Amino acid sequence: MNEVNFGMRMVDLIIKKRDKGELSKKEIEFIIKGYTNKTIPDYQMSALLMAIYFNGMNDQEATNLALEMMHSGDVFNLAAIKGVKIDKHSTGGVGDKVTLVLGPLMAACGAKFAKMSGRGLGHTGGTLDKLESINKFNIEMTEKAFIEQVNKIGLAVIGQSENITPADKLLYALRDVTGTVASIPLIAASIMSKKLASGSDAICLDIKVGSGAFMTTIKEARKLAELMVSIGKLANKKVSAIITNMDEPLGYNIGNALEVKEAIAALKGEGPEDLKIVVYEIAKQLLKAANIADDDNYEQLLDQKITSGEALEKLVLMVKAQGGDHKQILNPELLPQANKIIPFQASKTGYIEKMNTENIGIAASLLGAGRETILDEIDMAVGLEFKKKIGDYVKKGDVICYLHANEKGIDSALAILADAITIGPRKNKVNLIEGVVL
Amino acid sequence: MNEVNFGMRMVDLIIKKRDKGELSKKEIEFIIKGYTNKTIPDYQMSALLMAIYFNGMNDQEATNLALEMMHSGDVFNLAAIKGVKIDKHSTGGVGDKVTLVLGPLMAACGAKFAKMSGRGLGHTGGTLDKLESINKFNIEMTEKAFIEQVNKIGLAVIGQSENITPADKLLYALRDVTGTVASIPLIAASIMSKKLASGSDAICLDIKVGSGAFMTTIKEARKLAELMVSIGKLANKKVSAIITNMDEPLGYNIGNALEVKEAIAALKGEGPEDLKIVVYEIAKQLLKAANIADDDNYEQLLDQKITSGEALEKLVLMVKAQGGDHKQILNPELLPQANKIIPFQASKTGYIEKMNTENIGIAASLLGAGRETILDEIDMAVGLEFKKKIGDYVKKGDVICYLHANEKGIDSALAILADAITIGPRKNKVNLIEGVVL
Repeated sequence: MNEVNFGMRMVDLIIKKRDKGELSKKEIEFIIKGYTNKTIPDYQMSALLMAIYFNGMNDQEATNLALEMMHSGDVFNLAAIKGVKIDKHSTGGVGDKVTLVLGPLMAACGAKFAKMSGRGLGHTGGTLDKLESINKFNIEMTEKAFIEQVNKIGLAVIGQSENITPADKLLYALRDVTGTVASIPLIAASIMSKKLASGSDAICLDIKVGSGAFMTTIKEARKLAELMVSIGKLANKKVSAIITNMDEPLGYNIGNALEVKEAIAALKGEGPEDLKIVVYEIAKQLLKAANIADDDNYEQLLDQKITSGEALEKLVLMVKAQGGDHKQILNPELLPQANKIIPFQASKTGYIEKMNTENIGIAASLLGAGRETILDEIDMAVGLEFKKKIGDYVKKGDVICYLHANEKGIDSALAILADAITIGPRKNKVNLIEGVVL
Repeated sequence: MNEVNFGMRMVDLIIKKRDKGELSKKEIEFIIKGYTNKTIPDYQMSALLMAIYFNGMNDQEATNLALEMMHSGDVFNLAAIKGVKIDKHSTGGVGDKVTLVLGPLMAACGAKFAKMSGRGLGHTGGTLDKLESINKFNIEMTEKAFIEQVNKIGLAVIGQSENITPADKLLYALRDVTGTVASIPLIAASIMSKKLASGSDAICLDIKVGSGAFMTTIKEARKLAELMVSIGKLANKKVSAIITNMDEPLGYNIGNALEVKEAIAALKGEGPEDLKIVVYEIAKQLLKAANIADDDNYEQLLDQKITSGEALEKLVLMVKAQGGDHKQILNPELLPQANKIIPFQASKTGYIEKMNTENIGIAASLLGAGRETILDEIDMAVGLEFKKKIGDYVKKGDVICYLHANEKGIDSALAILADAITIGPRKNKVNLIEGVVL
C-alpha cells in the first residue's frame, strides 16, 4: 500500500460529514488507508463515525466504504471454480441453521456454494461453531484446497482468512466502544466488505428482524437490506436480500449439535416448517441468480433434491472432505449429547403469545452453547430443544422446551426462560418472510 | 483528585447522549475526571463530543460541565479584594479594545476590575498582546500581588494561570481536531469554566456576532448568550451578556499599539462612537451588578470619570503598577511605530456597503499584528488604521485605511483588503447592540 495524501486533512472531512456533505471516493480512500496505516488517529475516526451515525451515508458513499475496506486485505479470486459461485449471509439470529441446510441443497442443485463463515458471539450462534460439533470437522483450508473441494463436490464452508478486511476489523473494534455500531451504512459497508472480499458471484442476504435480531423494526431492516443490495449491485455482484422474522427462534433447536441434528432432519424432509420456508426463499433467489431454476420450478427442484437424498449426501461429502466424522451425519445420535435433559414447563394455560428471542439465545449461551467473549469455550452438546412455538396452545405443566445441559448455567437459564416466554389468551402468528429486496 | 468510578462505562454515556439522554452531574464528573486522568481515551471523548454537537446539552448539563472543568484546576479566591469584583469577556472580535477602556473606567467608578486575560489567535487580537505593546508591561504576577494591586488601585489585567481549567484545555485541543468546536453548549461551558475559576462576582459577556465573529447569526449568538448567563446564574454569579455586531471592526484601529492609542483616546473622550457605545453598555451592566449606578445615572457617572481624567489616570496607575512605561500612555507617540504608512484607496465611488471583518483581521495579522499559531511573534507596531466605516461615502482614490507596516505581508494584506471591502450604492447602517441578556 503506497502513501496516500491528496492534501487532505481528516478534520475537514469530519466537518464535511458533520455538515451533511457527501464524502468522495478519494476522501473515503484517504480515510480508510490513513486509519489502517495509523496516520489518522482513533479520536478523529470515532468523531467521523459519530457524524456518520447522525448524518448517514448515501449508497455511493457506503459502496465506496465497503470497497475500500474490502481492498484493505486479502480479496479472494474464485475464478478457478467453474459455474456461478453463490454465498449467503445472515445478520445473526437464534436457532439459525440455514447455511447447514442451504449449502448441501444448493450443491445438489448444481450451484457452487463457496462460503467463508464466522463464529457466534453474544446471543447468536455461528455456523463454524455448529460444524465443529461434528468430530474433527476442519474449518481451515488453503485457498487451493477450498477451490478444489468446491469444484469437486459443489460446497465448502471454511473460516474467514485472518487477513480479510483488516480495516473493517479495526473499525468494528472502535465502533464497539464509541456507541457507533448501530448505524445502517456502517453495518452495511462492514458486511458487504467481507462478502465482496470472499469472491462469490451471487449473494443472498438474510436480514433478521425482531426480538432476537439486531434490527428490531421492519423499517430499519428494509433500509439495511436495500443499502446492502445497492452496494452489491454497484460492485457488480448479483445481490438479493430477504427480511425474515426473528420474534421466535428459527426451528425448534438452539445449540450447536442440536442445530446440526435439526439441519440433518431438514435435509431429509423432516425438519420444521419455518426453517424450510426460509431455506427455500433464499434458495429461490440463489438458483435464479445461478440460472438453475426460476420462480415456477425452483420448489419442485428443491423437493426432489431432498426426497432423492442427494442434498443430505452433499452434507456427508462435505463433512468427509473436511475431515469430519460423517457417521455422525448418518446417525445423529452419535453427535455430542448433554448429561441432563431438564424440562421447562408452562406456568399457566394459554397460547404462547411472545418470545424474547434475544433472551432465549442468552439462556442457551449460559448453558454453554455460546460465548460472551471471543475467548470463551463452547459446549457443543448443550442448548434448548423447544416443543412449542408462538401461537401454540399449552396447558399449565406442559413442556415448552427441554434444556440440554451439563453442569453450567441451569438455574440462570431457567430464570431467563421464565421471563422470556409470555403465555396469554391471544393466538398470535409470526409472519416469517417480512420482505424481499431485489 | 480521588478515583471516581460509580460503576459507569463511558460507552454507555456516549450512547445515552447519542440517544438524546441527559447526562447527570455524577456522569459528567465521571467523564471529566476520567478524561483528565486519562482513564477515558481520546477516541471515546471525541465520539461523545460529536454526539453533544448533534444533540446539545441542556442548561443544567452545560452548567455541570462548566463547574466540573472549573474544578479540574486552580480556582481563584478573590475574597481578600474588598467590594464587588467584576470581570468581562469577549468571544473575540477585530479591533476589540474594550477591556483597555472599560477596566480603568470601572476602577475610576469604584468597582474592582480583576481580570485574567488571554492572547490573540487567528484573526482576533488579545488584550495581553495589546498591553505588551507598552514597554516592559508585565502580565505575570502572584495571586497575592494581583489582589494587592486590585485592592489598591481598583484594577489589574494579568495572564491566566497555567493551571486554570486543565480539563478545558485538553477538551479544546481535542475539539479543534475533531470538528466539534462549533457547539454552543461546549463553547459556553468552556468560557464559563474559565470565568468561574477566575473568582469574580459579576461578569458581563460580550458576544460578538457578524462577519468578524465566531457566531455569524444573531440567533446563534443569542442562544450562546442565554446559555452562558444561565450557567453563571446556576453557579451563583451575577452574569449578563450583550450581543454586539462585528460586521465591521470596532473603532478604527486594528493592531496592538494602534489599539492602545485608540483606547487612550477613548479614555480622554476622544475615541470612536461605536467603541464608546459598547463600553458604556457593558459598564452599565457591571455598575448595576456592583450596586454603583443604575440605568438612570450610569451614563452621567461614566462621562464624569472621563472628563475629569480619573479614568485615564487609572490606566496610568495600572501601567505603573505592572512595570510598564507610563510615559507611553501620557504621550502615545512613544508607543511602537511602524516604518511604513501605506494608503489603501477606494477603487470606485460609492458607500462602504460591507466589510468582511474576519478577512480584515487576517490582513492585519499578515502584517504581523497577530499570530496564526501560538508560537508566532507579534509585531506591536503594525496594523490597520481605518478612515472609513460602513455607511461612509468615498470617492475613487479616497483613503479607506492606512497600513502601518514593517517588512512583512504588505502585498497580501492589500490583496485581502481589496476583496474584503465592498463599495456600492447602498448606505447601510450597522446595528451595534444586537441584544442584551440578563
